[in-house]
Amino acid sequence: MTADLDRPSLPLRAELVGLEPYGAPQLDVPHLLNVNENPYAPSEAVVADVAHDVALAAAGLNRYPDRDFAELRADLAGYLRVESGVELAPEQIWAANGSNEIMLHLLQAFGGPGRTALSFAPTYSMYPEYARDTSTRWVVGRRAEDFAVDPQAAAALIAAEAPSVVLLASPNNPTGTALPAETLEVILDAAAAVPGGCVVVVDEAYGEFRREGTRSALHLLPERPHLVVSRTMSKAFGLAGARVGYLAASPHLIDALRVVRLPYHLSAVTQAVARAALRHAPALMAQVGSLRAERDALVEWLRARGLQVAESDANFVLFGVFDDRHAIWQGLLDRGVLIRETGPEGWLRVSIGTPEDMTAFKDALVEVAGL
Amino acid sequence: MTADLDRPSLPLRAELVGLEPYGAPQLDVPHLLNVNENPYAPSEAVVADVAHDVALAAAGLNRYPDRDFAELRADLAGYLRVESGVELAPEQIWAANGSNEIMLHLLQAFGGPGRTALSFAPTYSMYPEYARDTSTRWVVGRRAEDFAVDPQAAAALIAAEAPSVVLLASPNNPTGTALPAETLEVILDAAAAVPGGCVVVVDEAYGEFRREGTRSALHLLPERPHLVVSRTMSKAFGLAGARVGYLAASPHLIDALRVVRLPYHLSAVTQAVARAALRHAPALMAQVGSLRAERDALVEWLRARGLQVAESDANFVLFGVFDDRHAIWQGLLDRGVLIRETGPEGWLRVSIGTPEDMTAFKDALVEVAGL
Repeated sequence: MTADLDRPSLPLRAELVGLEPYGAPQLDVPHLLNVNENPYAPSEAVVADVAHDVALAAAGLNRYPDRDFAELRADLAGYLRVESGVELAPEQIWAANGSNEIMLHLLQAFGGPGRTALSFAPTYSMYPEYARDTSTRWVVGRRAEDFAVDPQAAAALIAAEAPSVVLLASPNNPTGTALPAETLEVILDAAAAVPGGCVVVVDEAYGEFRREGTRSALHLLPERPHLVVSRTMSKAFGLAGARVGYLAASPHLIDALRVVRLPYHLSAVTQAVARAALRHAPALMAQVGSLRAERDALVEWLRARGLQVAESDANFVLFGVFDDRHAIWQGLLDRGVLIRETGPEGWLRVSIGTPEDMTAFKDALVEVAGL
Repeated sequence: MTADLDRPSLPLRAELVGLEPYGAPQLDVPHLLNVNENPYAPSEAVVADVAHDVALAAAGLNRYPDRDFAELRADLAGYLRVESGVELAPEQIWAANGSNEIMLHLLQAFGGPGRTALSFAPTYSMYPEYARDTSTRWVVGRRAEDFAVDPQAAAALIAAEAPSVVLLASPNNPTGTALPAETLEVILDAAAAVPGGCVVVVDEAYGEFRREGTRSALHLLPERPHLVVSRTMSKAFGLAGARVGYLAASPHLIDALRVVRLPYHLSAVTQAVARAALRHAPALMAQVGSLRAERDALVEWLRARGLQVAESDANFVLFGVFDDRHAIWQGLLDRGVLIRETGPEGWLRVSIGTPEDMTAFKDALVEVAGL
């Protein structure tokens, strides 16, 4: 009965056969501008507070953590109040190990076999994986030439496909495009008309980097019970390594997520790290301001050199168009600058780094692309 | 289009309607003996090492963590070598946020719609939830009167149901029953004969508490490519709050889990905490020895008072039989001792605590049950 030990016969699901694990290359390069990380390491003050609070938590690690992480939810609500001017109760907040797990909870509760999730491409490349992992049918509409979502076309697609979940990244990844409030209102109306209900998820992973005048969808929560706004501490907070994503929605919607979440999904340590970092929000928000300025300057610089650049409300910029984008990507990598080969054919995405990172990127691009 | 804000129409999956989130009550009681936690808080030395290593990790938290946590896998392999005498390569180890997420990964890769997962009741009450969350059909055989799995009946059920995943807790929760090697061999043979393949998961969450002579299923890994042995740091390591589960299996099997895992599912902080604690394995193993002795003493004490007690290789004991077990549970709680109302009708489960916890439990039980 013993099978071949190298290639045993395992009941791997058919849709997974031959797939590679998702993820950008993790290379050791001086300028890491490929996964939209915050280039600034946590300050000594943040590190000291994290270590202090983790030591307190560690003394009780033999016990299971608070399953409902009440204090963290209150702290996150307090942060959103300051960041977006929207008043939310702790019961309107949910958190998980990264936005990834937030999306998994949403699709486990509201997607699944026989259900459809819908988005508009080009968009975040993990969305179809969340759908696949929950056996949810995946449908994508197209964005316009300028990467905007056409509201009437979106409403028509929603009416035709009757999704139970619509995923909208705003600012969108990899394009940087924010969703105007009017477009979102049309989509929310279309979703509300889907028989059986439809949850609209606005993924604001990069929300803190939005430009003056771009509004967070958090403002719409009071009158939209089928709206979810997700956020993360990975980007603006510079805590990608800590894996803390969260969302705001109606308490009734969050009750559904509590049923599908794995018990104790958020460790006592993760809760402690997130709460310690949140106490430093003012300093971190100042840093976000300088990243925004750096982004706007880069957009201008790229355009001045004749390149196409997508409007960006995020901490990255999509630019092009190159006949051979892979050659540009490789040329940059050869010069110690790692960016991302993603988005529509011919485009490349670069994360906003420190001023030194940006200088290295620009110098390398001038050489490689002959600007 | 605005719906009732209190009860909006949400597309909650039919199988989730009306369900309550899983989880034992989290009450503030002097003697917490209900969720099989390790009663011993991490030592000052562990806390100091955890805080130190987390501070190092915190300084780089703006970057995503190592997606494949190579160092943690090597450390876990090193631990199992000492604990079980089984030599494993780091590529044979996988880890996640608690055994919960380990099981989710397994069922996402090998279960899912159109697939069946099978176990033998009474067993861990989360198993059907993992199946439900992955839309896997759930089938349970019955254990015998003494909570053992009958090998021939198990083989027949596997042949009849053709599951793609068999879940076997050993020691079993809530009964404490370990699976004899001979029974496991019969089940592994039956699984190997399932057309399309069948993965057998031996859940050794309580493996370190096994009695002399009870063998870990880790020994069978070299010749059984469809075997998975899962472990956790929640119990013996006293790290329930840190959420670290792991498994050992063939590298080929683990490749499948890498496809379904959410990218960066294990935070840099979780990796640091686990590695710091693993350096203290010898001290923690000594503690496990005293919990084992405490367990054996409790079994003897309960039997001497005429109660039925299931054989236990775990850090808990199932005992009974009571006409009104809820009254016993409530009586103990009224005296500051929280145990678990679980298992077959009339039985109760108590976790092994400190000697003080055990004295409180015994005193309260004598009073409440009139022993």
